[in-house]
Amino acid sequence: MLDLTPETSSPRADRPASPAAQNNAAAPDISHFHLDNGLEVVVIPDLRAPIVTHMIWYRNGSADDPAGKSGIAHFLEHLMFKGTVKYPNSAFSDLVSELGGQENAFTSNDFTAYFQRIAKEHLGRMMEMEADRMVNLVLSDEVVAPERDVVLEERRMRTDTDPSAELGEAVQAALFVRHPYGTPVIGWGHEIEGLNRDDALAYYRRFYTPENAILIVAGDVTAQEVRQLAEATYGQIAARGEAPQRIRAKEPPSRARRLVTLNDEKVEQPAHQRVYLVPSYATAAAGEGEALEVLAHILGGGPTSLLYKTLVVDKKLAVAAGAYYWGQALDDSRFFLYGMPAEDISLDELDEAMDDVIADLLRSGIDAQDLARAKTRLVADAIYSQDNQTEMARWYGMSLTTGMNVADVQAWPERIEALNAQDILNAATKWLDRRRSVTGFLLPAA
Amino acid sequence: MLDLTPETSSPRADRPASPAAQNNAAAPDISHFHLDNGLEVVVIPDLRAPIVTHMIWYRNGSADDPAGKSGIAHFLEHLMFKGTVKYPNSAFSDLVSELGGQENAFTSNDFTAYFQRIAKEHLGRMMEMEADRMVNLVLSDEVVAPERDVVLEERRMRTDTDPSAELGEAVQAALFVRHPYGTPVIGWGHEIEGLNRDDALAYYRRFYTPENAILIVAGDVTAQEVRQLAEATYGQIAARGEAPQRIRAKEPPSRARRLVTLNDEKVEQPAHQRVYLVPSYATAAAGEGEALEVLAHILGGGPTSLLYKTLVVDKKLAVAAGAYYWGQALDDSRFFLYGMPAEDISLDELDEAMDDVIADLLRSGIDAQDLARAKTRLVADAIYSQDNQTEMARWYGMSLTTGMNVADVQAWPERIEALNAQDILNAATKWLDRRRSVTGFLLPAA
Repeated sequence: MLDLTPETSSPRADRPASPAAQNNAAAPDISHFHLDNGLEVVVIPDLRAPIVTHMIWYRNGSADDPAGKSGIAHFLEHLMFKGTVKYPNSAFSDLVSELGGQENAFTSNDFTAYFQRIAKEHLGRMMEMEADRMVNLVLSDEVVAPERDVVLEERRMRTDTDPSAELGEAVQAALFVRHPYGTPVIGWGHEIEGLNRDDALAYYRRFYTPENAILIVAGDVTAQEVRQLAEATYGQIAARGEAPQRIRAKEPPSRARRLVTLNDEKVEQPAHQRVYLVPSYATAAAGEGEALEVLAHILGGGPTSLLYKTLVVDKKLAVAAGAYYWGQALDDSRFFLYGMPAEDISLDELDEAMDDVIADLLRSGIDAQDLARAKTRLVADAIYSQDNQTEMARWYGMSLTTGMNVADVQAWPERIEALNAQDILNAATKWLDRRRSVTGFLLPAA
Repeated sequence: MLDLTPETSSPRADRPASPAAQNNAAAPDISHFHLDNGLEVVVIPDLRAPIVTHMIWYRNGSADDPAGKSGIAHFLEHLMFKGTVKYPNSAFSDLVSELGGQENAFTSNDFTAYFQRIAKEHLGRMMEMEADRMVNLVLSDEVVAPERDVVLEERRMRTDTDPSAELGEAVQAALFVRHPYGTPVIGWGHEIEGLNRDDALAYYRRFYTPENAILIVAGDVTAQEVRQLAEATYGQIAARGEAPQRIRAKEPPSRARRLVTLNDEKVEQPAHQRVYLVPSYATAAAGEGEALEVLAHILGGGPTSLLYKTLVVDKKLAVAAGAYYWGQALDDSRFFLYGMPAEDISLDELDEAMDDVIADLLRSGIDAQDLARAKTRLVADAIYSQDNQTEMARWYGMSLTTGMNVADVQAWPERIEALNAQDILNAATKWLDRRRSVTGFLLPAA
């Protein structure tokens, strides 16, 4: 599928949009229920146009790839477009296109998802076809082998010829010693080469089950309509009895800071990144994920942030600088700093200047105005995001596949509002610990 | 067992002695055969004293630990001293002691081994008891749980309270992104905590089989005697049909150099190490492992080596400096540089000075005298090593569990002698590539 945009492992490409951009404050009347076979359903009404977004999310991503089979989650996502007996080859995609719809699919660390955006009258058809390929996928060697080459080419294009992406992979691999978040979503090339039909089928049978799936429908539709359609389609799939296990190694304690340096002749602008291993929303103590979110915003969320103001505007050491928190993850996740040095400024100097900004923040505390502005902005973004049906659906899917529930999503703005300056400072003190970090330097050829 | 010295994961403690110290040039009349059940046997005559060294080697080490079960190879090594029905509790060890013998056991990345050194008349008894515990080990929860605490304490003593060992673990973890050599032999603490009787039994049944074992007897004994005793003891164990599979992930290409820095208040003397990912004897092209061995000797084998002469004697930048090659490994392995800076010299300065030594070597080529001296020394050491029965046995065991055979070991001096200066230079040029390296800095508290 040329129009697929599976997420890859580079920090930027793979980064979920922040909750600020996607959360659902003052939520509409969201319905949430399960079918008898265990399939979870979320319905998000949006009556502004006769359009629906239909998504099916599976609670398995690259971090659930079996040992030595990295890339299988993403590879199967490709193979899911290869057809069933009833809808062979590209019949599903062709129909979406004929009906004026759009489709997409993506794989990340913790989930795989498929969606269509289409006129409301075709929702039932989409559900029927998506339910069909949950269990009736046809995979032949004739289809698997060429698609593996497609994935390998995708890897070559996106990573192996892009020093920035290569560095990103090396940084993540250094950050996660044991946990599979250190493995690229697309997989390591030499392991992709070994993936075959049996691997894909075994993985498909293990994870593509009603108990492991979440149906999300956003748009001009009622919960009752969705329930009826879901029961007639997904509901016909036999239950497996239980959800598949997600088996993931845990990280040992991290006591040594790491620096990963990549020199490449293709690099023109040096770049800096630093990644801290921090809790995700799912693994954090109450309020700590939200505190990291606000901290990232104060520290590096746009042109009014401390990093930007200090390094780019005031000291002119950098031409770009920022921070973000990747909170949507089932396991311990990542807090990123990044920057690009101004001319004649070394990455070491930029690195030290970033530390100075953080030290200064810890010393002088959180400015009350900065905090208020950050909270207002994050909550406002969450409210604005309701205008985007697909974003809303995506946000629920991402949250529900990474250990949150509907109520958690809905109460997110309240939890942001409840934070005080000390909460942010505590999070910064506790988690911005260089012993838990990997720094990446991207440089021109030595 | 208090007297056990299982090898751990720090580069120094876990490092096998170099072949120079252990190889068998101008070998005695070594016999090599298999029993019907697949057990491999090597007999090394040494008639100087009425003593034998009896070793059983298993072709499984920490790199064969199942996912999430790091430390199980080493843990089982401990549990192997917990007794069988016939020789319960510590009966085996007690008897060795009563008979005036010594015993030991060790676990490394690629093997686990048990041995006794004892008066020759007790060889049959040792073989009977060792064969017994290959299949009749009794493991109860009462024995397993306290021994796990012993291992955890061992880990705390050796690693968690030793910044140098901690850094070593972090360096290895950074070097091996995917391959299990990046995991400490003793295991990660949080995974050791989860090891239980079922894990140990499953591992034992999988790997402790005649097809997976190598019996090595060195000493005052003939091949015929060993064969008879072996058939009467090990030979009685039923064959399983095939050797267990060793399943190990492979490394992706390495394009980014890495620096791991650990600051700790317990550190008084800063220290530097650099590790390159290089082929082992088993994975190298013909002669390349030997070239790396000679290169390590020229570069950093003792006080006449380039690193020592340049950094310690001439420039006085370091108080210690050296290099070694860890060639005995089933998969791609490691080439180490190390040093300790002189007072007022930073680790960065030492690091750069090491690069200068290497650059100088590549520029000026290998000095003919240096090469001749290195070859003579390595081969001489191999001949001297024949004086040590246990070293000889150990060297064969290590070689046979890491992809070599008896003929490979015997021809090692010839392969060293055959190298020319260009071979060494080629190896240095190809493999001392910083993109394949991780550097470790050990520093006092910041």
